[in-house]
Amino acid sequence: MSILRKDPLSNGWVIISPERGLQTSDYGPVGTTVKKSGLCPFCPGHESKTPHEIFAYRKEGTHADQPGWWVRTIPNKAAALRNEGHVGRRGKGIYDLMNAIGAHEIVIEGPDHVSNFTTIDPRLVEEIIRMHLDRMKNLREDSRFRYIQIFKNYGSAAGASLDHPHSQIIALPITPRWVKEELGCTAQHFARKERCLFCDILRQELADGERLVFENEHFVAFEPFASKFPFETWIIPKEHNANFHTIPEEQIRPFADAVRLTLSMLFHTLQDPPYNFIVHTAPLYYRKANYWKTIDDDYHWHMEIIPRVTKVAGFEWGTGFYINPTPPEEAAKYLRDGGK
Amino acid sequence: MSILRKDPLSNGWVIISPERGLQTSDYGPVGTTVKKSGLCPFCPGHESKTPHEIFAYRKEGTHADQPGWWVRTIPNKAAALRNEGHVGRRGKGIYDLMNAIGAHEIVIEGPDHVSNFTTIDPRLVEEIIRMHLDRMKNLREDSRFRYIQIFKNYGSAAGASLDHPHSQIIALPITPRWVKEELGCTAQHFARKERCLFCDILRQELADGERLVFENEHFVAFEPFASKFPFETWIIPKEHNANFHTIPEEQIRPFADAVRLTLSMLFHTLQDPPYNFIVHTAPLYYRKANYWKTIDDDYHWHMEIIPRVTKVAGFEWGTGFYINPTPPEEAAKYLRDGGK
Repeated sequence: MSILRKDPLSNGWVIISPERGLQTSDYGPVGTTVKKSGLCPFCPGHESKTPHEIFAYRKEGTHADQPGWWVRTIPNKAAALRNEGHVGRRGKGIYDLMNAIGAHEIVIEGPDHVSNFTTIDPRLVEEIIRMHLDRMKNLREDSRFRYIQIFKNYGSAAGASLDHPHSQIIALPITPRWVKEELGCTAQHFARKERCLFCDILRQELADGERLVFENEHFVAFEPFASKFPFETWIIPKEHNANFHTIPEEQIRPFADAVRLTLSMLFHTLQDPPYNFIVHTAPLYYRKANYWKTIDDDYHWHMEIIPRVTKVAGFEWGTGFYINPTPPEEAAKYLRDGGK
Repeated sequence: MSILRKDPLSNGWVIISPERGLQTSDYGPVGTTVKKSGLCPFCPGHESKTPHEIFAYRKEGTHADQPGWWVRTIPNKAAALRNEGHVGRRGKGIYDLMNAIGAHEIVIEGPDHVSNFTTIDPRLVEEIIRMHLDRMKNLREDSRFRYIQIFKNYGSAAGASLDHPHSQIIALPITPRWVKEELGCTAQHFARKERCLFCDILRQELADGERLVFENEHFVAFEPFASKFPFETWIIPKEHNANFHTIPEEQIRPFADAVRLTLSMLFHTLQDPPYNFIVHTAPLYYRKANYWKTIDDDYHWHMEIIPRVTKVAGFEWGTGFYINPTPPEEAAKYLRDGGK
């Protein structure tokens, strides 16, 4: 049974998840790569090979777990978290643990087995985003959860175990370490300046210009000033908004466009690199309003895209201190110029 | 020129290091793997192929940059930090940066091109540790530095770019993020309990027993309760000591034994896995003494070993929240039983 354990030396939690399938005896020489079987469980017609679908956008008259869908959400078969039961926060000597209560869902991003965000119909990208929003709103109803994490692993080097385009949603009973750390910094900034730190970053990026990658009416894509990885790219709404799930209707299409066009630039420039994207949004119970600030004043949702083009070595893992060989200004220029 | 930039949304710094050699144009399909040339610059007889040696243990009568050494320290040719100049802390709008002042050294761990910690003479392991200590003590003399990081990348999947056994030492003008975070937790613990958190962990590990991997008179190797990675293993001195460089003389041999024998267990059980090891020690200016605690009361040096047997996917990178499929108790048992 999966369990959540707290690292006593950080604010981080770890899921110890033997159900994920890897057993000690599986470890040998590395490179236990993706097992390829002939049949893709995510392709239309193979719906019976997946757990029962949670939700799908499908043609009228078609039924759950049948073809006719264009975006389909299913439980992750190898879920690291389970939905039944109580969180059960408890200690064990000096250690802290809780049950790995949560949800782990797969969003199948279309019927096509071979496609990606740069080749699919722009309207499908919008539909995928709408599915993310629908699932997030639904999962937020469960009071046991503290954070809903949307992310995508593209390519085996980025952690994908199946080729068919898909993203993932994880609901957690804790707020992840990075989001906590971002919130700590943004809250400090707001306390001092009464301004959102992300809004300040955005203003400086728009003024400096040299790290900008893409811009439309509602969104900006840029390489962060202290990029940890070459071609790390963030997409952020211009208008202050703490929560992804409260994105205004008129911003959904522009966000889908920003995601698709930014990924296309990375695709063409880096020749189809493996990548991860992650949506950072305010936690469910982020409610630290007081007399001088309103709820949600000091967080600002955004998407982080990390192409996996370099290896992360011991120095980085052991220190949290990254060496990035590519200045973000150069990366941004290279992307803007289409890899020339 | 390399520069240190602060991530405004965390306590982390990043080295932007175009000198490291990778240019934007080098990025293409991933897997720009280690370039193998016939000649190993770290082998005896090829001393002229490296920068001038900083320090070596060598036979009497032999000269610098000549054969006759058994452990040899040289500057890293592709150093991410440089030694000359001032740190130059400054801001740029809302961003913070400083010059990438520091040192980046390579410790060549013996003349043998093909060897590892499990096959070499135990006395050589001790000599390598002594070199780490000598270099750390020397680098601590430079008042610009705040932290000295010792680490090793073994195997190309762990970030090694040359096969010849070597470890690395980096001197930094900042304290890395993880060490800062550990210090935050240990200081809180000491404030509440007047005890070192690491000492408490050690006591519980010795009492529980199920995560222990190795023990001798002065050191314990164990799998941390909230291990982020399968077979993550820590080696920690039983006696409280904040600083690696103040290890008592009589503990050096037992530490070398603990490192060698723990790595041997990982080597045999996981069949020569790529791994990283990292020494965590107190920062140079960790001097927060006050009326109720002495200097160095609340940190405790240790070595972290991370075998690189699983891929790290988007979820982990984007959240700092790790999913580990192997319970540390199982990993410890597996190591103790020699992989059976």
